[in-house]
Amino acid sequence: MLRYLTAGESHGKSLVGIIEGFPSNVSIDVEAINLDLKRRQWGYGRGNRMKIESDEIEILSGLRGGRSLGSPIAFLIRNRDYENWQRYMDPLGPIDDGRAVTRPRPGHADLTGALKYRFDDIRNVLERSSARETAVRVALGSMVKQLMANFGVEVMSHVLSVGNVVPGESNDLNEIKDADRSPVRCIDKKKEAQIIEAIDKAKETGDSLGGLFEVRILGLPPGLGSHVHWDRKLDGRLAQALMSIQAIKAVEIGDGIENSSLAGSQVHDEIFYSQDKGYYRESNRAGGIEGGMSNGEDIVVRCYMKPIPTLYKPLRSVDMESKEAFVASVERSDSCAVAAASIVAEMAAITVIGQEFLRKYGGDSLEEILERWKG
Amino acid sequence: MLRYLTAGESHGKSLVGIIEGFPSNVSIDVEAINLDLKRRQWGYGRGNRMKIESDEIEILSGLRGGRSLGSPIAFLIRNRDYENWQRYMDPLGPIDDGRAVTRPRPGHADLTGALKYRFDDIRNVLERSSARETAVRVALGSMVKQLMANFGVEVMSHVLSVGNVVPGESNDLNEIKDADRSPVRCIDKKKEAQIIEAIDKAKETGDSLGGLFEVRILGLPPGLGSHVHWDRKLDGRLAQALMSIQAIKAVEIGDGIENSSLAGSQVHDEIFYSQDKGYYRESNRAGGIEGGMSNGEDIVVRCYMKPIPTLYKPLRSVDMESKEAFVASVERSDSCAVAAASIVAEMAAITVIGQEFLRKYGGDSLEEILERWKG
Amino acid sequence: MLRYLTAGESHGKSLVGIIEGFPSNVSIDVEAINLDLKRRQWGYGRGNRMKIESDEIEILSGLRGGRSLGSPIAFLIRNRDYENWQRYMDPLGPIDDGRAVTRPRPGHADLTGALKYRFDDIRNVLERSSARETAVRVALGSMVKQLMANFGVEVMSHVLSVGNVVPGESNDLNEIKDADRSPVRCIDKKKEAQIIEAIDKAKETGDSLGGLFEVRILGLPPGLGSHVHWDRKLDGRLAQALMSIQAIKAVEIGDGIENSSLAGSQVHDEIFYSQDKGYYRESNRAGGIEGGMSNGEDIVVRCYMKPIPTLYKPLRSVDMESKEAFVASVERSDSCAVAAASIVAEMAAITVIGQEFLRKYGGDSLEEILERWKG
Amino acid sequence: MLRYLTAGESHGKSLVGIIEGFPSNVSIDVEAINLDLKRRQWGYGRGNRMKIESDEIEILSGLRGGRSLGSPIAFLIRNRDYENWQRYMDPLGPIDDGRAVTRPRPGHADLTGALKYRFDDIRNVLERSSARETAVRVALGSMVKQLMANFGVEVMSHVLSVGNVVPGESNDLNEIKDADRSPVRCIDKKKEAQIIEAIDKAKETGDSLGGLFEVRILGLPPGLGSHVHWDRKLDGRLAQALMSIQAIKAVEIGDGIENSSLAGSQVHDEIFYSQDKGYYRESNRAGGIEGGMSNGEDIVVRCYMKPIPTLYKPLRSVDMESKEAFVASVERSDSCAVAAASIVAEMAAITVIGQEFLRKYGGDSLEEILERWKG
Repeated sequence: MLRYLTAGESHGKSLVGIIEGFPSNVSIDVEAINLDLKRRQWGYGRGNRMKIESDEIEILSGLRGGRSLGSPIAFLIRNRDYENWQRYMDPLGPIDDGRAVTRPRPGHADLTGALKYRFDDIRNVLERSSARETAVRVALGSMVKQLMANFGVEVMSHVLSVGNVVPGESNDLNEIKDADRSPVRCIDKKKEAQIIEAIDKAKETGDSLGGLFEVRILGLPPGLGSHVHWDRKLDGRLAQALMSIQAIKAVEIGDGIENSSLAGSQVHDEIFYSQDKGYYRESNRAGGIEGGMSNGEDIVVRCYMKPIPTLYKPLRSVDMESKEAFVASVERSDSCAVAAASIVAEMAAITVIGQEFLRKYGGDSLEEILERWKG
Repeated sequence: MLRYLTAGESHGKSLVGIIEGFPSNVSIDVEAINLDLKRRQWGYGRGNRMKIESDEIEILSGLRGGRSLGSPIAFLIRNRDYENWQRYMDPLGPIDDGRAVTRPRPGHADLTGALKYRFDDIRNVLERSSARETAVRVALGSMVKQLMANFGVEVMSHVLSVGNVVPGESNDLNEIKDADRSPVRCIDKKKEAQIIEAIDKAKETGDSLGGLFEVRILGLPPGLGSHVHWDRKLDGRLAQALMSIQAIKAVEIGDGIENSSLAGSQVHDEIFYSQDKGYYRESNRAGGIEGGMSNGEDIVVRCYMKPIPTLYKPLRSVDMESKEAFVASVERSDSCAVAAASIVAEMAAITVIGQEFLRKYGGDSLEEILERWKG
Repeated sequence: MLRYLTAGESHGKSLVGIIEGFPSNVSIDVEAINLDLKRRQWGYGRGNRMKIESDEIEILSGLRGGRSLGSPIAFLIRNRDYENWQRYMDPLGPIDDGRAVTRPRPGHADLTGALKYRFDDIRNVLERSSARETAVRVALGSMVKQLMANFGVEVMSHVLSVGNVVPGESNDLNEIKDADRSPVRCIDKKKEAQIIEAIDKAKETGDSLGGLFEVRILGLPPGLGSHVHWDRKLDGRLAQALMSIQAIKAVEIGDGIENSSLAGSQVHDEIFYSQDKGYYRESNRAGGIEGGMSNGEDIVVRCYMKPIPTLYKPLRSVDMESKEAFVASVERSDSCAVAAASIVAEMAAITVIGQEFLRKYGGDSLEEILERWKG
Repeated sequence: MLRYLTAGESHGKSLVGIIEGFPSNVSIDVEAINLDLKRRQWGYGRGNRMKIESDEIEILSGLRGGRSLGSPIAFLIRNRDYENWQRYMDPLGPIDDGRAVTRPRPGHADLTGALKYRFDDIRNVLERSSARETAVRVALGSMVKQLMANFGVEVMSHVLSVGNVVPGESNDLNEIKDADRSPVRCIDKKKEAQIIEAIDKAKETGDSLGGLFEVRILGLPPGLGSHVHWDRKLDGRLAQALMSIQAIKAVEIGDGIENSSLAGSQVHDEIFYSQDKGYYRESNRAGGIEGGMSNGEDIVVRCYMKPIPTLYKPLRSVDMESKEAFVASVERSDSCAVAAASIVAEMAAITVIGQEFLRKYGGDSLEEILERWKG
């Protein structure tokens, strides 16, 4: 079973990941990982820090000559900003308290994290709760994506809405594959213009915006996940992976929300069969998952993201030291991170898919899995 | 760590559950569990089988004199219908193939399950994928609910919408606590009438309806879950537990969907402090979870349920034996199970909460946990 | 991944198990399970209770017509003694305290368990810590044994020593397969006589004896377990499973203990190759495991069992209520359970093997696994 | 729950570890970790490489100003030798095959690992199966040791025997604490001289030696682990952790092996009580564990280590490419690693103890756990 741990603080030395259970003999293209890391950092509406940090992965173990060894793959992504932050963040040395934070920001882990872990300095929370952590999940997912490409599996995503832009319909797979061409990752040109305008306006007023995006996974065989036990259901596992992404507050499989208001006869995807295609459906309102299993259609998942809570336009809060009210401090300056989150979600989703794929096919080496998958 | 396994087929001998890690010396009221089992079976729009099966739990181990022993609690819920089904479902004896199924129903695990597990008889899938399995989750959750009551934690739920009824606003906790009084578990009298009407109409036309409901958990301390690792985030863990309930296709934390279209300044819950209340918020758009942790406010989660796929009004499918097209068979006859699902969701949610509570407080016995919780 | 939970108190209603992840379409012979349950209960030196309880498994779910469904298999083993014990052990009803225990027995979980779980009545501990629990592990393992027989894998065991009988050499596999013919499961006729004599003498003096036995697993492919991460090593996983059996206090892989005093040139098994056999060894001092993986030779594991702590010949202890010294009470009356433990160990070992086999071959159905295994 | 992953190849860039679930506000002394790393590298009979590599930990995350943040702690230990090995081991670049290995060494993971993961070059196995990996386990355990020191828990070890030296009795805790003073970690001066002589002789003849050592853990409260489920038993968990150490082939709790040949009346530790000491025993043949739980006495565990399989004195094997017989190649040159393994075992054992301690006491911060532990 593919398992992994992530580590790293936002202004610490580096982000780190280890993934265990990755099969042997898989070619890994590090530049493709770096590209996915860049895709997470791009996007209209990101703040200045994105320009400082151009993430690059450094592989420490588990690969040799560009191929996986079956042993755990460890890697790090350096925080280039660390040199400016060392005096505040050194793992060992004495800490300059010039960056101590006692004022919890609404919408963040700040207050609860400080209470839970008994910190005076909220920085001890926010450095880890920061979405910067998702760079590790992107790197991990990017490796799993490369593994899954051997089996014809692809993952992609696109943004449907930001702020109060009404989402359109977008089902052209070729366009979705090219979503990176849009600065806001929206393939509907009209919506794209509206989104850019909304972000510009939010920036101007010091506000922030959330939005809605969709992840698709193509080329899956039927039968990933299982109906036999609740915690093996693929929809549940995807929901956890996606809801755990910072600021994601709702997850929808297929047309789940609309379907809840329709009659059954309008909702379920009828089943057809032909000699060449085998079983297939002509619609995909289920989003590719029935009974907790991939059904062979494309997986379609949507995520609803709240506006990132870091604001120029401050909110009321309470200083934890003095217990006095204040208006919340500004830590960073993105006004919209929906495009970035869509990349993280791609990677979180393909990681779950890879786990379930390996659970079904077993296999220690790529060759072995390929034999079984073809069989 | 509280962990559990569930077992049982819909028309098999019995449903079974084992829960391990339950603290010692907790008084368990079996009648309260039976009441939760009944709450799952009630509800306007359920089919005839609900009248046959009046579920009762039988404790096999882990309790003595009504108190938990710290050892695994095993229990079963007999399928009263089993005597009529024994010839088709006997675990050991030869099987009468009079109930064999070769025609997969759209929207079910049927087709994929039969392919995955290599069955000719789809009954081998549908008996387990059936939502009847949720009775075990209800019994388990009902025990965790009783554990959590010792710490002042309560769980409740209510239905906001069925079919195309427009959901209203319902925030009166006293009314929500009384949701069981409504045959459709809707506390808004006007909506209730509309829902009943919609169900009646669906029944008439042989169709089915889904809907939307809300689960609330009250009385939690801040700090359940954690921001430090993705798989410890409380929202992610709740999302998995709820999305794994049959027919749930979207999960929302707080006002997650609406929030995705608002500006940050409208979304985040400002923080206040007073000597007696400590930290508090005056709004709860975050649904009680920030940074992947309970923040001390009520947990609010919403689930979107598709219409149950079993239909009088049939859909096209393909016979797996003959590969010929047909219109899908009718296995059961509920037209709306939203009220039932809301009870299952209560229990799934409180189970996650109990797990995270015990992770934070440790503790082998109730007394020990109470000391720590008061401390 | 094959996982399971066990439940049940020694004089409670029944023992219960659930195993999840068992592939579909495996034929299960319930009489073969009952035979393994009997094998656990046989054995020279067991007390009277073994005659009362003739264990039989009752399958509650996961099988249909004698074949596995891929869904969780739940089963129970009734405690026939329960009717005599109900007034002391009823899960719900009021408890007659006539069987309350306040005097912890040395060598048992009694004292620590009562402190940990805060019990006044030590019965709340001893009912679960009793080796009666191992009946569930035997039933589970017996199913896994049947699964593994499809792949030519066999498990067997025999007793090498009881008390101070000097163990002999016994390497004849055909004799080991017939160990059940010996009342003490010892295939060396001379040692057998000495063991019987030792047990008789222990009985006479009211004392108890431990001993040494060996488990062998034949027919495994190389490559179960893995060298890549400590917790995937097969020897470590076997060690946990076996050391967790009541009264087992040392576990040895192959000739591990003797090897620790020899030179490397005497210890390691040289590698040979021939066209028909492929790679093979002519010795097996490693016990079939190198680098944490099965190497294709027979797995050989030895377990050292302490004398069961229940004694006619009492030991000093302290009453938990009065804090006064006393001599320890007698709960049961086996004088030697080494033969029984060897059966439990067979089953614990084959369960680990089954888990690792399924991890390597994946597979939802027996057919699929067979295809891969043959490939 | 404290969990961790390790990574790294023997001649790769670096070894890496991540530990998740470590409480906040624990002071970590990095020099103490480096000292434990050195203790692993010391020892009479180690080869030349130990002089090249003087391991030092570099903390990448999870600490700030020398205190833990509650977030995952990631660290690396550079392989100083890597610069000489980069052309053979670079994770990405083309690989010089000058160090390819096609000849599996008996007693190693080589043959099985190459078959399992489908490698032509056995180096892909041996780089990870090497005991060099244990440096990460030492670093992890050293942190857990520092955590546990806050609760008065200590771990120590000493060597009882190497080769055919007959082990003596050594029970003086003060001497055991000073075992590092002996170059072979043996506190019995007479045995020490014999061990040194045996190692010298093995070196001369190009042979290798194993041995026997003991790990002790002092100061534990009763009740770590549990009798309620097989996989929560402390002896089983320790057995897995220790048996997974390279070359350990038997694990014994207390006097487990001797006890297997004695009568019950001679084996079990009688229980006493006094006002100041509470419950106590005057003997400790159980090695501090009864019923799968720590009983408040010292934990005593013994490990039997085979001679390290790398030999100057070669053994027969088969070339995997040509299938021709040969005598096995020499990769490294330690003749005895028993002292080193005893340090690894200390750290593996204290890690398990820390996990169970945190399971019992829960707790996010050191302060919270201290309050509960004192309570």
